[in-house]
Amino acid sequence: MAPAYKLTYFDGRGVAEAARFLFKYGEVEFEDVRVKRDDWPQLKEKTPFGQLPVLEHNGKQIGQSISICRYLAKVVKLTGNDDWENLEIDATVDTINDLRQKISAAHWEQDAEKKKKLRETLLNETIPYYLQRLEAQAQKNKGYLVLGHLTWADMYFTSGGTGFDQFVGSNTFDKYPTLKALREKVEALPAIKKWMEARPKTEF
Amino acid sequence: MAPAYKLTYFDGRGVAEAARFLFKYGEVEFEDVRVKRDDWPQLKEKTPFGQLPVLEHNGKQIGQSISICRYLAKVVKLTGNDDWENLEIDATVDTINDLRQKISAAHWEQDAEKKKKLRETLLNETIPYYLQRLEAQAQKNKGYLVLGHLTWADMYFTSGGTGFDQFVGSNTFDKYPTLKALREKVEALPAIKKWMEARPKTEF
Repeated sequence: MAPAYKLTYFDGRGVAEAARFLFKYGEVEFEDVRVKRDDWPQLKEKTPFGQLPVLEHNGKQIGQSISICRYLAKVVKLTGNDDWENLEIDATVDTINDLRQKISAAHWEQDAEKKKKLRETLLNETIPYYLQRLEAQAQKNKGYLVLGHLTWADMYFTSGGTGFDQFVGSNTFDKYPTLKALREKVEALPAIKKWMEARPKTEF
Repeated sequence: MAPAYKLTYFDGRGVAEAARFLFKYGEVEFEDVRVKRDDWPQLKEKTPFGQLPVLEHNGKQIGQSISICRYLAKVVKLTGNDDWENLEIDATVDTINDLRQKISAAHWEQDAEKKKKLRETLLNETIPYYLQRLEAQAQKNKGYLVLGHLTWADMYFTSGGTGFDQFVGSNTFDKYPTLKALREKVEALPAIKKWMEARPKTEF
């Protein structure tokens, strides 16, 4: 029988890797479809708003990576216990996404002069600002980002780690020991460890 | 007794207006705190990640406007009936937010030449692309964005409408009659109508 879920993205980790982490964590089977760049223009028209990832389930398809993760977190039981707890998770994920977008904007900037400036602001201001606060938050939450236990915020944070290493530098987390330990803890979960060894090796 | 909720934002609609719509819709009392620009630098340090809006409840404070709206939607019962339905709402809200961010980027661009270019792309490509698809989605959903009934996606969409008029043009929705009718329908809800008449008149 075909898996009940199909996740379509490019052949990379990017903004789909968090969803893959959640599938693997929960041992939920899914079809991991990786679209070739050449096939994208034709497929683009068939997606809800011209973007990937797209999740398919029960004949329906839907986009938006973070929304997909929130749904999968319910499937694999990595949510909070009440509405406020889920708000705390959601807000933390959105905050990490804010940082991700800033890193991404600096990385993909075409103008060399502007890119240099964006990168300086990122390394000297933005990243320390966010990571100091996330570090303090993790210290208050027994080494997790929220609620004192593993939630999908931790999976979202950790799944983006390799992109972090690549765009910002692999020693970035050395100054933030609680975040570093959190990442190592999530990466050591048997299902995640196995996936990180088995997954396709891609640039991004 | 003081209201159980306090919402702090600048003196404007911006990304806090959707939360205000939800409070008003559900007749949930809240303190509508509007920070003066002069007071912001001092307050900024006390917010979770240097941003507004911030929601306070039971002695806790939390940021991120869309996460706050998702929480309030549960409070005022404008969510879906199951996890997949809530995914459909979430994805639509994120899509509207993608469009909002693109409009905002064009509006606030400082370089005149670049701004002109961004605005052309916005008016000729981006906005038609998104609104055609949202229009089709609303046609399939009995005039609502998702699920064939009022959800917080409709509140989120409508609350941003005045910003839309202002940045893009008040006749933008004329080409999208289902979206236009949806907006009018939400604005005609008694609690929303009353709020739109009573709310502080601000530029943004």
